[in-house]
Amino acid sequence: MAQFYSKELVDFVLFKVHDVKSLCALSRYEDHDEASFKMVLDSANSLAENHLYPIHREMDTNQPELRDGQIYVHEKMKGIMEMIGEQGWISSAADYEKGGQQLPMMVSWAASFIMAAANYSAVAFYGLSQGASELIAAFGNDAQKSLYLNQLYEGKWQGTMALTEPEAGSSLSDIVTSATPTENGYYLIKGQKIFISCGDHDACDNIVHMMLARVKDAPKGAKGISMFIVPKKRYEDGQLVANDVTTGGMYHKLGYRGAPIAHLMMGESNDCRGYLVGEENMGLKYMFKMMNSARISVGMHSCSIASAAYYASLEYAKERKQGRPISNKDVNLPQVPIIEHADVKRMLLFQKSIIEGSYSLLMQCARYEDLSYYAEGEEQAKAALLLDLLTPIAKSYPAEMGILTTSAALQIHGGYGYTTDYVAEKYFREIRIHTLHEGTTAMHGMDLLGRKIMLKNGQAVMYLMQDVMTDISKAKSSEAIKTYAQTLETKMMNLQELTMHLVGVAQKEGPDAFLSDATLYLELFSILVVGWQWLKMGVVAEQEIASSNSNSNTNSISNQFLESTLKTLTFYFEYEVPKTIGLLTRLKSTNRVTLNINEDLLI
Amino acid sequence: MAQFYSKELVDFVLFKVHDVKSLCALSRYEDHDEASFKMVLDSANSLAENHLYPIHREMDTNQPELRDGQIYVHEKMKGIMEMIGEQGWISSAADYEKGGQQLPMMVSWAASFIMAAANYSAVAFYGLSQGASELIAAFGNDAQKSLYLNQLYEGKWQGTMALTEPEAGSSLSDIVTSATPTENGYYLIKGQKIFISCGDHDACDNIVHMMLARVKDAPKGAKGISMFIVPKKRYEDGQLVANDVTTGGMYHKLGYRGAPIAHLMMGESNDCRGYLVGEENMGLKYMFKMMNSARISVGMHSCSIASAAYYASLEYAKERKQGRPISNKDVNLPQVPIIEHADVKRMLLFQKSIIEGSYSLLMQCARYEDLSYYAEGEEQAKAALLLDLLTPIAKSYPAEMGILTTSAALQIHGGYGYTTDYVAEKYFREIRIHTLHEGTTAMHGMDLLGRKIMLKNGQAVMYLMQDVMTDISKAKSSEAIKTYAQTLETKMMNLQELTMHLVGVAQKEGPDAFLSDATLYLELFSILVVGWQWLKMGVVAEQEIASSNSNSNTNSISNQFLESTLKTLTFYFEYEVPKTIGLLTRLKSTNRVTLNINEDLLI
Repeated sequence: MAQFYSKELVDFVLFKVHDVKSLCALSRYEDHDEASFKMVLDSANSLAENHLYPIHREMDTNQPELRDGQIYVHEKMKGIMEMIGEQGWISSAADYEKGGQQLPMMVSWAASFIMAAANYSAVAFYGLSQGASELIAAFGNDAQKSLYLNQLYEGKWQGTMALTEPEAGSSLSDIVTSATPTENGYYLIKGQKIFISCGDHDACDNIVHMMLARVKDAPKGAKGISMFIVPKKRYEDGQLVANDVTTGGMYHKLGYRGAPIAHLMMGESNDCRGYLVGEENMGLKYMFKMMNSARISVGMHSCSIASAAYYASLEYAKERKQGRPISNKDVNLPQVPIIEHADVKRMLLFQKSIIEGSYSLLMQCARYEDLSYYAEGEEQAKAALLLDLLTPIAKSYPAEMGILTTSAALQIHGGYGYTTDYVAEKYFREIRIHTLHEGTTAMHGMDLLGRKIMLKNGQAVMYLMQDVMTDISKAKSSEAIKTYAQTLETKMMNLQELTMHLVGVAQKEGPDAFLSDATLYLELFSILVVGWQWLKMGVVAEQEIASSNSNSNTNSISNQFLESTLKTLTFYFEYEVPKTIGLLTRLKSTNRVTLNINEDLLI
Repeated sequence: MAQFYSKELVDFVLFKVHDVKSLCALSRYEDHDEASFKMVLDSANSLAENHLYPIHREMDTNQPELRDGQIYVHEKMKGIMEMIGEQGWISSAADYEKGGQQLPMMVSWAASFIMAAANYSAVAFYGLSQGASELIAAFGNDAQKSLYLNQLYEGKWQGTMALTEPEAGSSLSDIVTSATPTENGYYLIKGQKIFISCGDHDACDNIVHMMLARVKDAPKGAKGISMFIVPKKRYEDGQLVANDVTTGGMYHKLGYRGAPIAHLMMGESNDCRGYLVGEENMGLKYMFKMMNSARISVGMHSCSIASAAYYASLEYAKERKQGRPISNKDVNLPQVPIIEHADVKRMLLFQKSIIEGSYSLLMQCARYEDLSYYAEGEEQAKAALLLDLLTPIAKSYPAEMGILTTSAALQIHGGYGYTTDYVAEKYFREIRIHTLHEGTTAMHGMDLLGRKIMLKNGQAVMYLMQDVMTDISKAKSSEAIKTYAQTLETKMMNLQELTMHLVGVAQKEGPDAFLSDATLYLELFSILVVGWQWLKMGVVAEQEIASSNSNSNTNSISNQFLESTLKTLTFYFEYEVPKTIGLLTRLKSTNRVTLNINEDLLI
């Protein structure tokens, strides 16, 4: 079994850095403790190792097929969905009373990180059912809950998010799928949806689409969008019958080929019934309640894929012998494992620093998610704001950087990396989806700069600065990392100045100029926020090393891991953080070349 | 027919920026003139448009197949190789007396750029025959020339470069394929070669491998490697018979799937005959004569693929309507073509600035190549040194940056870019080979810093600085670009200081520390050298605009193109050049984290 993630990383970040146990003080999570969380992670590991990893390449090679209007997926997916249902992964975070386990999001995400590192395509199936069931649990009526929730939780039915249309991808307010009310309570749905992940397949008995559509005469734009449950099969007289949802096509993709992506047509025979969720015209609002989670999922699974690619390249670098040390190239000596070459170490540390820093940021967000749902007062409000602020970063940074880290993993394999004999090329293809779905990177840049930093008059940014400064103070008292604490402090000040400068641009030159380099602002902000996470990890690693030295063997995290963490932190500050200088230079320039260029000159 | 390159770019860089006509003063090229060069480019365009582009996606989708020890490629490749042979592309740069056309390398490379933009896989076939025939023409004996050259030139036989072995990829000195002399003049070859591009296929009647092997009792390492012609079929009694070269396997690859890559076994029946080229133990030396060319080919074809991806994304950006301007999001207005969004323009200008700057650098190198072969005295010596110095950059920068530019092309397509319905994902896969073959990027970094800057006591770097400073002076008198001339001047000084600093590191800390960040040094150096090319293009563009204003319509390059060039230059200096600041910071740091980390901490 090849390694695809680090158990020590998961434990270290969850228990030591972000102290998941402290969440058990919330009444929501009072039944849990460290031991129960560890059991959950062990189950995830076991499912990942025994069922998901063994078929991850088969699922990529033997892609789903569309035959006679029905998509067929890997034969083992049915059993896997059942297992996932039985083990409670789909309902892991749901209320006890709805059949859930009330696990903290932190633990659910950690489990999902592990499973997606083993087989991202397979995890997509259950992730979508999680999302759909959350929507029904939050906004559905009792009849809907009783009809759909158990089937989704048990993995018998597949949930989907059916938003995108041919003319409405990034611009969701332009959807045109129509919903016509009938006297029987349901609506007749007519339209097309594209890129519907797991939108049709044979591993579940039914597909339940959470679909956005426009009720006749609804207001234009985002305010006129409603949410419907549109099942592939509906009950009539106790029997499941076809609901006039047809699969018009299946996309062939660059990667994560094990998950089918469907093009759906509703109402070709004017008999597609949709069941309104909540109130009319509230659809986008409901959907946005799920958006932070959906986006964290993208960042998390980027980390998963990048982690699997890292371990593939690490294993290769240890085994592959090629070349000799620069200081002794005597051809009579045997060749050395390539891990001994400085540039190979650089490419390994690059991956590791991005993956582990991103993973810690995602756990930070998961913590805010938990607190935003179940804490109270200012703690709740603060967590909700910080989650909103950091979500565009947690979504985009692992996705964008993951293109580069999986590319480095491939590069370490040399020419072999370009062949399908090794798995590196699969991860390079797979991760490429993540800067595209759940909002492109450009949209998250605009979300961060154009909305999030302004949130409640900048309150979110102020909270962030407080938390970062607290951790910088702690890091300053650590001999090993105080230099980098100082670096981050300076750079956070630069970021604040830059933000003020850009607000000035907004006032003087208007919103187009303000947001023209929002993608670069997102990148700069991300590098620093991940730097903050590295300081957090560094402080804890130093404490753990000190306590393990004084207090032998009570520590579950090895000193090797902790030392590795400190080295990787150093790498991040030495190689990644300096990239902010160029970004800052560009972001302060007054030359608006992208705005000013006439499209006719793009030739 | 979709656009895949810019004819104006090719003309502008070839005729205006790098003045190919001036080469006609060399006796080698005295029969040529601008008109004949333009005819050559027209032929390349016609072949590309009519024969290569139409099947480029088919060749990717319907991969070559290995059946019963024989690789079968796209059925049209046979006709294409014949056409390429008839039109003289394989012998384009060869001597008249050997059946060649004595075209300048600049023109041959421009033609190859065009054809590879249409279909990189197809160009790989003839590029390899070019390389093999160059080796035979340069180092073969008369019998070898008469037996092989015409067959290769006519596209009837396929040439290959058979270097790599399972244990000798980057480390060529570790080759073990053996060559045992016989009394009959030939050698018996035994061994395996891997990753042999076009190493077997049915589009040619024979395959001619230029193979490196070790004669019995030869010295160890690079000094004991000889070059052999090892044909798939040899003549016996006027008949072609099998030469005991068997195809043990075919690699399935991430991209450029139209070109077959073979695993070859020689001498399984002890009857594989190899014919020594030149003298024993000179094989690597001969091969290295071709290395600059082979590496420029990689850079050039990276540009080709990136160019095709750029035009695919440009076309999509003009057609695809999505979203509304930031300053007016009224949903009653129609959606706008995405090219109007600043971040889409940024991604387009990013691609364009990298592709066109790299292309100009490659033409600069082609010019040095021509001068290094056929000029005299200091002009020749200078060109040879500059070619050596710039080759690692011309090879690696377009390849590394091409990963990012094709990724941007895919990103512009949104979710569609991830599907095989659009061609973007093909280019993203295809270009990924180029940082791997003909030396990985890390090797070129070490070549640049460890060998090239030291060449002849730094004479190469001094020549480069002279040329760059001359162009900076010219650019300083141009109103539009003098700011950027000043920027480049400062940064070239910083680069020189950095180089001296690193030489100091070599003296104090030894070669390992000196070269530990050579890849980053290569990146920094590359950005500035491409900046130099942008200034060159900018100066000429300004002159051309001025002359077209005073002197209507004698100019073959449109003002639209020239204005676009100046805008793209601006983009390059505003967005790409600032990246050097972070690189400089890192390269001056004394923290040798990659060198110092123990491999045990890479976990």
